[in-house]
Amino acid sequence: MGRRSSVLRLIPLLALVLACNARSTAAPPPGPPADPLPSWNDGPIKRRLIDYVVRTTTAGSPDFIPPDERLATFDNDGTLWPEKPMYIQEAFMLARIRRLAAADPALGKKQPYKAILAGDFSAVEQGGTKALMEIFATTSTGMTEEEFAREVAEFFTTAQHPTLHLPYTALAYRPMVELLALLRARGFQTWLCSGGGTDFMRVVSQTMYGIAREQVIGTSITTELVSREGRLSLLRKPALSGVLNDKAGKPVGIGLYVGRRPVFAAGNIRSGGDIEMLAYTQANRRPSFEIVIEHDDAVREFAYQEKNGETLAAARKNGWPVVSMKRDWKTIFGERVVAFPSSTVAPGPASPTAP
Amino acid sequence: MGRRSSVLRLIPLLALVLACNARSTAAPPPGPPADPLPSWNDGPIKRRLIDYVVRTTTAGSPDFIPPDERLATFDNDGTLWPEKPMYIQEAFMLARIRRLAAADPALGKKQPYKAILAGDFSAVEQGGTKALMEIFATTSTGMTEEEFAREVAEFFTTAQHPTLHLPYTALAYRPMVELLALLRARGFQTWLCSGGGTDFMRVVSQTMYGIAREQVIGTSITTELVSREGRLSLLRKPALSGVLNDKAGKPVGIGLYVGRRPVFAAGNIRSGGDIEMLAYTQANRRPSFEIVIEHDDAVREFAYQEKNGETLAAARKNGWPVVSMKRDWKTIFGERVVAFPSSTVAPGPASPTAP
Repeated sequence: MGRRSSVLRLIPLLALVLACNARSTAAPPPGPPADPLPSWNDGPIKRRLIDYVVRTTTAGSPDFIPPDERLATFDNDGTLWPEKPMYIQEAFMLARIRRLAAADPALGKKQPYKAILAGDFSAVEQGGTKALMEIFATTSTGMTEEEFAREVAEFFTTAQHPTLHLPYTALAYRPMVELLALLRARGFQTWLCSGGGTDFMRVVSQTMYGIAREQVIGTSITTELVSREGRLSLLRKPALSGVLNDKAGKPVGIGLYVGRRPVFAAGNIRSGGDIEMLAYTQANRRPSFEIVIEHDDAVREFAYQEKNGETLAAARKNGWPVVSMKRDWKTIFGERVVAFPSSTVAPGPASPTAP
Repeated sequence: MGRRSSVLRLIPLLALVLACNARSTAAPPPGPPADPLPSWNDGPIKRRLIDYVVRTTTAGSPDFIPPDERLATFDNDGTLWPEKPMYIQEAFMLARIRRLAAADPALGKKQPYKAILAGDFSAVEQGGTKALMEIFATTSTGMTEEEFAREVAEFFTTAQHPTLHLPYTALAYRPMVELLALLRARGFQTWLCSGGGTDFMRVVSQTMYGIAREQVIGTSITTELVSREGRLSLLRKPALSGVLNDKAGKPVGIGLYVGRRPVFAAGNIRSGGDIEMLAYTQANRRPSFEIVIEHDDAVREFAYQEKNGETLAAARKNGWPVVSMKRDWKTIFGERVVAFPSSTVAPGPASPTAP
């Protein structure tokens, strides 16, 4: 039984390898077939992911999806990088408050900035969206789009995660980066779809995830065309453009940027923010795939649950696979994988007589 | 002099051909170098276009632009397809009114629908944006994004231009389609940036211009996630999302969708709608190129002017080349050119001894 199921497990992987090879003209290297998802432990979710990618991109398959409909959307915070102990964009705003207070000490004596500088975020947490928007206005608006991009780039060059002690740019979940690369290698467009700031994520999406800056859907703010130093530029204003890109706002954001329903979506538990995106994707008439990531690894990342458990309940109800970071991921943070190395995929099964 | 300038004229073209060839591994066909812009008459604008594309994409050139900054934005109405005697989206709304009035005769007895059905658009013209938005709401909202896309596709399959007597899908300006293809062949992203409806243009942008539906920036409306026939869908609502994508709204739209300043922009005269996009592009610190199309060909297309002449004045002031449809375009409407045939570009100058 163990032996037989091992062989069965290999079938989708072999099909993928053969399909990749059929399109390639370069001579493949010798050796066993490369695993496109090496950071995933073998198990039902990894098998289902590979099976989905194979059957939707193999010509003649009843589940074949035309290339221009291969649209995948990924949440960001908690799905592609950590969201604890605070959102990374909150860490950016904190760093900005420190810099602004250094230049203008009066700011650091006012609330909520005084509390924030002392490490107390409770006022912000309790103040909800309104409090967050005030801090956002102070730290992230009133400058041109290019000035903001420079501030964000500076943050990512210098800042470190407070408990993982790594630069934030080293904190993409390696299994998800592999999944993104596998999807792109099979002709899927990979889009970010997050409640985070569009212009904040754009600065690192290509480097960290291989996602083009133009394929970032987030919460956007209004801008105004102004002349700055004799040059027309976009000035960032403290008001939303459209809706918050969260919950029911995520399909709305996808409609604005993509204009078509995805076939693949990935989200995570925390605040129910991805349920609508996953359900909207599942309502595609094409075969679709939805996954939900559960944060259950207190040793390697963080362990936390959703207050009301609504995302896991929706996953159970709708049949969305739930990824356990603890069980399903061999590694969480690894070296950055920029592109799926399709040219290294070998032609067939490993020879048992190979050295 | 004539002979010498003919040779000089060939230099940018030859450089382009050589650069294309240097990247190609396929054996080129024999014969003279293919002209990448065969529907453009030889002249200063064609030469400047080719020169710009060559010097910004040739490694080692002082004007080299890194691939991810090669962003080109094109207005649509009057720049890529005709806007007379009415905007094509207005023709779509008229066709929708006809269908709706056939199903509900009461509609056809109300103003402004009664006048519109009789061919009188003066009420709409005089009513400005408000009148247009009411007709837009009646004809283009209250349905899901997928239902709307089907309505638009149906229109393009059946409708014809009232005076040119061709399907609208045959009315892309061939010289501009060649320019789009040349830019893409040299690694530029080509974006639509129009006051027209985003979801309207998306239906034909790939087929007519080779512009991906995800690279259409237009005026967008709000949508709402609703359950229709047991399926989550986006319902189109009669309200703008963000600002009208015209005048100062065009750079704002570019900021939302692209998040970076273009290096190339094309617009036309009519209502000053492209001036800000062209000026915002010109403020790029990279070498940029802006063109303005003038409608001066009453025989092959339409001849009209801008009331206050502001676009031509801005072109003179800022040094933007003005394309005369009459003088600069060999043909206006030709067969659809889907992709720039870079593989057919030959390696060098024509041999004078060739048969």
